[in-house]
Amino acid sequence: MFELTFQFENDEKPVVISVSPEESVLDAARKANVAIDAPCSGNGSCGKCRVKLVSGELTGPQTSHISDEEYADGWRLSCCMHAASDAVVLVPDIASAYRSRMKTADLSSGEEIRIFEELLAGVQGAGISLGNGFRAVDLQLDEPTLDDTMPDNERLTRALEAQDGIDAVRLPWYAMRRLPKTLRDNAFAVRVLGELQNGIFTVFDVTGQNDTLPMCGVGIDIGTTTVSAVLFDMKDGRLLSKASGGNGQIRYGADVINRIIEQGKPGGRKKLQDAILKETLVPLLQTLCKDAKLPPARIVRLCVASNTTMNHLFVGVDADPVRMEPYIPAFFHWDGLRVHDLGLPAHPDAAIRLAPNIGSYVGGDITAGTFASMLWDRDELSLFIDLGTNGEIVFGNRDFMVSCACSAGPAFEGGDISCGMRATDGAIESCVIDPETMEPTFGIIGEPGQKPVGLCGSGIIDTIAELFHAGILNSKGIFVREGKRVAHDRHGCGRYILATPEESATGREVALNEVDIDNFIRAKGAIYSAIDTLLAAMDMDESVIESFYVAGGIGSGINMRNAVRIGMFPNVPLELFHYIGNSSLAGAYTMALSDEANDRVEQVARNMTYMELSTHPGYMDAFVAACFLPHTDAARFASAE
Amino acid sequence: MFELTFQFENDEKPVVISVSPEESVLDAARKANVAIDAPCSGNGSCGKCRVKLVSGELTGPQTSHISDEEYADGWRLSCCMHAASDAVVLVPDIASAYRSRMKTADLSSGEEIRIFEELLAGVQGAGISLGNGFRAVDLQLDEPTLDDTMPDNERLTRALEAQDGIDAVRLPWYAMRRLPKTLRDNAFAVRVLGELQNGIFTVFDVTGQNDTLPMCGVGIDIGTTTVSAVLFDMKDGRLLSKASGGNGQIRYGADVINRIIEQGKPGGRKKLQDAILKETLVPLLQTLCKDAKLPPARIVRLCVASNTTMNHLFVGVDADPVRMEPYIPAFFHWDGLRVHDLGLPAHPDAAIRLAPNIGSYVGGDITAGTFASMLWDRDELSLFIDLGTNGEIVFGNRDFMVSCACSAGPAFEGGDISCGMRATDGAIESCVIDPETMEPTFGIIGEPGQKPVGLCGSGIIDTIAELFHAGILNSKGIFVREGKRVAHDRHGCGRYILATPEESATGREVALNEVDIDNFIRAKGAIYSAIDTLLAAMDMDESVIESFYVAGGIGSGINMRNAVRIGMFPNVPLELFHYIGNSSLAGAYTMALSDEANDRVEQVARNMTYMELSTHPGYMDAFVAACFLPHTDAARFASAE
Repeated sequence: MFELTFQFENDEKPVVISVSPEESVLDAARKANVAIDAPCSGNGSCGKCRVKLVSGELTGPQTSHISDEEYADGWRLSCCMHAASDAVVLVPDIASAYRSRMKTADLSSGEEIRIFEELLAGVQGAGISLGNGFRAVDLQLDEPTLDDTMPDNERLTRALEAQDGIDAVRLPWYAMRRLPKTLRDNAFAVRVLGELQNGIFTVFDVTGQNDTLPMCGVGIDIGTTTVSAVLFDMKDGRLLSKASGGNGQIRYGADVINRIIEQGKPGGRKKLQDAILKETLVPLLQTLCKDAKLPPARIVRLCVASNTTMNHLFVGVDADPVRMEPYIPAFFHWDGLRVHDLGLPAHPDAAIRLAPNIGSYVGGDITAGTFASMLWDRDELSLFIDLGTNGEIVFGNRDFMVSCACSAGPAFEGGDISCGMRATDGAIESCVIDPETMEPTFGIIGEPGQKPVGLCGSGIIDTIAELFHAGILNSKGIFVREGKRVAHDRHGCGRYILATPEESATGREVALNEVDIDNFIRAKGAIYSAIDTLLAAMDMDESVIESFYVAGGIGSGINMRNAVRIGMFPNVPLELFHYIGNSSLAGAYTMALSDEANDRVEQVARNMTYMELSTHPGYMDAFVAACFLPHTDAARFASAE
Repeated sequence: MFELTFQFENDEKPVVISVSPEESVLDAARKANVAIDAPCSGNGSCGKCRVKLVSGELTGPQTSHISDEEYADGWRLSCCMHAASDAVVLVPDIASAYRSRMKTADLSSGEEIRIFEELLAGVQGAGISLGNGFRAVDLQLDEPTLDDTMPDNERLTRALEAQDGIDAVRLPWYAMRRLPKTLRDNAFAVRVLGELQNGIFTVFDVTGQNDTLPMCGVGIDIGTTTVSAVLFDMKDGRLLSKASGGNGQIRYGADVINRIIEQGKPGGRKKLQDAILKETLVPLLQTLCKDAKLPPARIVRLCVASNTTMNHLFVGVDADPVRMEPYIPAFFHWDGLRVHDLGLPAHPDAAIRLAPNIGSYVGGDITAGTFASMLWDRDELSLFIDLGTNGEIVFGNRDFMVSCACSAGPAFEGGDISCGMRATDGAIESCVIDPETMEPTFGIIGEPGQKPVGLCGSGIIDTIAELFHAGILNSKGIFVREGKRVAHDRHGCGRYILATPEESATGREVALNEVDIDNFIRAKGAIYSAIDTLLAAMDMDESVIESFYVAGGIGSGINMRNAVRIGMFPNVPLELFHYIGNSSLAGAYTMALSDEANDRVEQVARNMTYMELSTHPGYMDAFVAACFLPHTDAARFASAE
């Protein structure tokens, strides 16, 4: 056994663990709970899990992901390396760019709250009440005496039953346990927090009347790659905090199939559930509460929107049937979940609503997102697309809705791309390339002067579109011009250098190579061919589209014209496109806030038809045809150039 | 810091812990979770917490509880001793006689189950159904196909809703989590276990049709000193296992007042709750399940009967108001408790019923016990008395019931008595003393040939009655004859030697001394004066009593004639007395089994009037008058001699 020490770039404390020579550095990191992303699940193919050897000796291959200079500098792939002595390795921030580094939003900026406010206005415009059953009731109880010997719980219950609309009272353990002390500390003048449903008032807490902290809801979007959540006041939906982070399950694979396989191994279901609960949601909820200066028990309602696999893994239900014929999951719509079942930092009696699934590959993120798009309330024919790790598409209007899903892979969120990253500080989110000099100009997320760390989805789209438009890339994604910014490695793989080591924030080159571009072309081809196939199945084509809603973590900077130019989206007038941000999160937020909205999402789910693309004749041909820039049938995109 | 090692008489593994010289050996034992009883809460007065020094050095006073011979042998009081070096001490079985050494009952003996069977017959005779809502439903579901894509939960729910009497289905997390695997492992032919209430079927589990394990209930009596429980089949009430053990809270004091004080200290509520939950009920329930070969999740209903303080500490609710004027507890009757609130080894969704309390000092053990006595269903005037650590009395019939409580202390269960013990193996439960020779003859609990370990309550009653009757003791409890069996220590304190070290099972003398007898006289005086005062308050006297029910852990061997002769019970004809065992446990069992019985106990509680003795004029005089053998007014007992 050797002693392996993990150091970090930020001020985190180093972590020390004993390892055997059989365990990889990545295995050791997983055991020690050190966050190192491994989208390929540790088989050496993605090149994301790099660490820097500081001292000691590691054995293992260099791999094609590490250049000679990088190797000399100490860079290693943790999944391929084994300790050969006591050793110290540095885990760079980039190695856990997906999952850790919780990011909280600045709610003083109008941008962060605009989408949520607009959604509430739209929902109310559709005649849906934003109300829920949560109430704070102030009571002045008589103090007990030797002649008035009613016990605390009856005293409280009777006073509540004297209130308008309350026929009966339920007093669960959490509130009961705190009752005697709260009553006596406040001279029997208390505020009762609870939920009124069909005349039954369920007490969540009893507190003093000077306690003005609100009861709160939380909307959560569990993406395969990224998890986001908002905390809000249940009274009016006002946002109190917002945060996001990577999904801790990333270490078990980038896509849902790898994770279903992992959860099927002995002890796997618990490991995958722990990764999303303990490693991801617990710190995320704690961050939300800390930001809003609120004790977790004030979270009295949650709603989770996530794809079918993610919500099975979240609940801890076997997800194997999702991927095995006949592809029947444990549930589409299920409402029996409570916080105490999962042990999250929130009120133990709080219900956790799950946005309903439609099929194995169209889940609650899409029903919630479709709700947030308001497509179901419009006469016009709209197409809604959520660009997550999977791409899901809904087409329709108030009369009908058809949905399908395609496996785009994580490229839109920066996965499967050597310098890819989430749309967060340091990400190149837009790019213009001078056709003459081939020099790039960027938009970078972060403070002015931020140097580039990597590329998020919208930056990749721009870069490829610009490279193609400038004739630097051909329609197969191969570099066909030479220059200062274009280089080839010893295997002949070309790349475009967006930032040299000197220009970047990390001292490492930021580049897009032909393997990345090939990955991305297959991702965009999956999207385009899915849209194409869905419309063709209804004897329609893109000309019927009256609105095109784009949602997902691809970044608000997405350039729709470039997305069309590379053949990712159909060639419809640019004014039809609307980027609506994280619609899954917005939908979950609304479902947590409003009982009527929750009912309406269920109705949306029931009204939605699911079309299985993988078995659909024609889809495979359409996909192959779309795996070019912009398409084998370039005429479709002629007007976009 | 020194290293202290605890060894045990049985085959338990030794426990090692670091201690500072400031910590007593008892403190160290508490920290290391080693069971050493300390009824006096560690202040050196009860002499129960003795350990034997094996090696090393302890410092501290000898105390009057340790004789010179014992001291030379290594015996020490753990609460008075501090380590002065690394040391090894032996914890004798007797040091944890109250709490550890879980005892399971042999249900093949008719004696153990007779009381329960008779109670069920009596309850049915009173027109109360033994039914409950738990049902096992066998279903053959269609297997899903590509054309029949209903998810698992809907498939199950629809099939259940097609059953008679089921209008709606609730599927909580526990059952949901296991659903997909169980369905597929059993080719969709499953057994659904759940509870039907008002047309709503709540699913507790889904299992295979070859799984014949029943759904079970548990009745629990949490006494201040002893905890007992039975596990039974919810279908018909058939007993599957029965066990008892000491209440782990004993280390925080023998009586409820000491424990309320302890729970009021910082962190105290959790410590006291942990002592009853983690140390007592968790192993007790595990023992019950192991005996019945049943997984804990098959326990779908529990009922706890306990005094008001015990049920507050069990739930984790502040018990301070119980002892502070105006003596208003948090609840009398409360039904919001679930297993997941407390984390017991049982189905997390199982409801825990609490037998309702009447007042701060007449609790659920008495309402459940009164129910089990069937007093509430009879025309004749009956007196019911539960001899626990407190003595509680109910008097009445189907038309009225009055109750009161007196603080008898733990003497009836062997507490406060130097050689006292619970009614378990080795306990002298009956005693006859030859008036001439003063030699005793015993009944001892256990296998034939069992030597005496100590005295349980019924043995103490017999011994005192016989000593008094033989003129060895006077009416003040002072030894007035000399002989081989009577000795005095150096302080002049007399004692009667029931067993010499050679005659006993432990190598230690078994004796009853004047301090013990004084303690016992005060306990029996409290009981007698409470009965006297209760009857006098209604302008009645003992002549109205038509039945006299005695319940409690005093032991089934109680000799009613001797109890009358020492002035503990009123002088009524012996044929009126009935020993009904642990009526609190029997009541809890019935309440867990039968929904109607549960309702009826609530009705019994509502119909019962509580009389506060401590503030009642005349009680204190009656008590003082009763603190003699048999009474200052010996004429009352003249006919009993």
